[in-house]
Amino acid sequence: MNALGLVVEYNPFHNGHFYHLAESKKETNADVVIAVMSGNFLQRGEPALISKWERTKMALHCGIDLVIELPYAFATQKANTFANGAVSILEALKCQSLCFGSELGEISSFLGANEFLHKSKQQYDELIKKQIKTGVSYPTALTNAFQELTNGKEILDLSLPNNILGFHYVKSIREQQAQMKPFTIQRTSAGYHEQNFVSPTIASATSIRKSIFSNEGDITNYVPSVTFQILNEYKMEKGLLHNWEQYFHLLKYSIMTMTEEDLLTIYEVEEGLENRIKKNILHAQSFQDFMERIKTKRYTWTRLQRLCTHILTKTTKQQMSFINDSQTAPYIRLLGMSSKGQEYLRSIKKQIELPIISKLATFRHPLLELDIKATNTYNMIFEEPLRSKLLKAEYATPPIRL
Amino acid sequence: MNALGLVVEYNPFHNGHFYHLAESKKETNADVVIAVMSGNFLQRGEPALISKWERTKMALHCGIDLVIELPYAFATQKANTFANGAVSILEALKCQSLCFGSELGEISSFLGANEFLHKSKQQYDELIKKQIKTGVSYPTALTNAFQELTNGKEILDLSLPNNILGFHYVKSIREQQAQMKPFTIQRTSAGYHEQNFVSPTIASATSIRKSIFSNEGDITNYVPSVTFQILNEYKMEKGLLHNWEQYFHLLKYSIMTMTEEDLLTIYEVEEGLENRIKKNILHAQSFQDFMERIKTKRYTWTRLQRLCTHILTKTTKQQMSFINDSQTAPYIRLLGMSSKGQEYLRSIKKQIELPIISKLATFRHPLLELDIKATNTYNMIFEEPLRSKLLKAEYATPPIRL
Repeated sequence: MNALGLVVEYNPFHNGHFYHLAESKKETNADVVIAVMSGNFLQRGEPALISKWERTKMALHCGIDLVIELPYAFATQKANTFANGAVSILEALKCQSLCFGSELGEISSFLGANEFLHKSKQQYDELIKKQIKTGVSYPTALTNAFQELTNGKEILDLSLPNNILGFHYVKSIREQQAQMKPFTIQRTSAGYHEQNFVSPTIASATSIRKSIFSNEGDITNYVPSVTFQILNEYKMEKGLLHNWEQYFHLLKYSIMTMTEEDLLTIYEVEEGLENRIKKNILHAQSFQDFMERIKTKRYTWTRLQRLCTHILTKTTKQQMSFINDSQTAPYIRLLGMSSKGQEYLRSIKKQIELPIISKLATFRHPLLELDIKATNTYNMIFEEPLRSKLLKAEYATPPIRL
Repeated sequence: MNALGLVVEYNPFHNGHFYHLAESKKETNADVVIAVMSGNFLQRGEPALISKWERTKMALHCGIDLVIELPYAFATQKANTFANGAVSILEALKCQSLCFGSELGEISSFLGANEFLHKSKQQYDELIKKQIKTGVSYPTALTNAFQELTNGKEILDLSLPNNILGFHYVKSIREQQAQMKPFTIQRTSAGYHEQNFVSPTIASATSIRKSIFSNEGDITNYVPSVTFQILNEYKMEKGLLHNWEQYFHLLKYSIMTMTEEDLLTIYEVEEGLENRIKKNILHAQSFQDFMERIKTKRYTWTRLQRLCTHILTKTTKQQMSFINDSQTAPYIRLLGMSSKGQEYLRSIKKQIELPIISKLATFRHPLLELDIKATNTYNMIFEEPLRSKLLKAEYATPPIRL
């Protein structure tokens, strides 16, 4: 079977994702589609709207055949590490292609940019260092260095978020000498950061979440009915959809009881930030307020949100050091499968070199501990007895079948 | 002026405390009364019903002249350390007497027991070790060893909680070669652990708290009107009176995100307990439930509650190591004073060797950091904007004057 790999968050699954899935299948002639999906915390350092289990259901209902959890250690990272983890899982599952959405929509430019940067690596690295010294953020440094290097020649606009991710998928495939072939589909109508609805059927996940939390606008035009239904069920059963503000009391409690030395053990807390965090938490009355207080030119909002996620989950530098040097995932955590997905899995079983985890109890790994801790933290905001029920479910829930 | 020292928790101030205060003044002919009072967390490892500021108001209204905070590092400890810290503060403030309530009410027996144990120290220590090896708790080991040593001669019943504390006050005075003289007043009517009302005007703080939280019974007969009023105001303004259950979500979150190694850095977490704690937290739906799950013959309920308090406030072994060898307090944190108390303080000012802290900003000490952290934790259960207001108040509140 010809397997297509996607890297997704589905927060929540919307029409744009549906379009991407359909176009990708067409483009790659795939028989089966595997999605590597972030768990309960996402790449921008936020809790997902609803849990990974419900997002898995959405994915399966909308045509995905296998849903694999991208471990926390990769899911909450900058593009490079995120891509390495995701690509390694799709490669381990013998995908023949990976198809990502991008602003550009031309795979040749991604290949070209990679080829070009590979050749000019030393020069590029020096330009990045020079940029960082000026006090700009890391992503801005990359973009500026790239522009300087290409001397204004428009190879690929690396200031656009999906172009960056795409660039890194292609880079990971190259570096891991993966067998899969990269494809890209141009994103239509809705920019990644777009806050408002601008097209009749396609909207960014950001604008959909904004509409949900502000109770303004109607999302039914922009999401499959199953998404709408699952979101509503979740809210009915659990009383909320997740966002950072609901975790702020835990974050504040954590920071207020940690010393500056404790903070420095947390992943992504660089020297100097510990003082800034401690100094500002006392006065911060909300997560938004806290973020605005600690924000500087040097650190992007996303970077600081990720850092807050690591404080919230108490993820230390030492715990993250269990990521191997090539940044490949050490296990495949199966969240859900269609019957076709199951059939595919059976067909390639003998060729898979990584352990496949269907039940938590059967496997242990330091990075899996981080996934468990992330889920525990994610569910800590519920009242009893729901909290205990959800905490225990993480150990008991078998992969969802459709 | 003749100053009398008391060691108190006032959780809340009740008629028994009033009786003790009056009798103690009579007994010692005191002009001025100084209370060393535990802050927001108490010796039995519990959050106080209301904050130390409101309990200071109660104390001043009921006749105390100076209220000093017993630092967290002493207030949440077993009798020995608790007494050492308290006595050292009263001695630093030139008290001529210390008067404690006890089941026995005869100071000679306390002096006799101390004298006896001082002489038989080596033998006593060996008997304690022998007892501990049988798997009983530390307090039981002390009692049994003492009984074995005295060979049934009834010198002092050390199985009674107030006798134990009294014994340790007398011991601390002896060991610190303090100038103050110990006195004791017999406790009337209500045992320390008494859960129900048994006298028409005197009831234990335990039974008063029980009545408050169960909404059963009327406490007005058992507390001065100012206590009733302050409790009501607190509940009106802040929406709650504190108990462990309100902190359980924070405790659970803490434990679920800590590793076993992290737990072992916490004060009072002995080797082996970390597994027991981690194993049981997942299923515990309330603080009571959790305590029942981790309770063993070896560890008393109080000991485990104190340990939970240290986890909640993230107080580490290393942080507690700043207690000096003689276990004396390094500062005097002034919570409140009457005009007479202020006059007294002025009169002895030049003789006081410890720094007196009226404003937090003026002094730093590792043990004071623990007091601040305890207050932060204590206030974390409130909603914004009340939480931030209370957190900031800790730095801004001057001593209460009456």
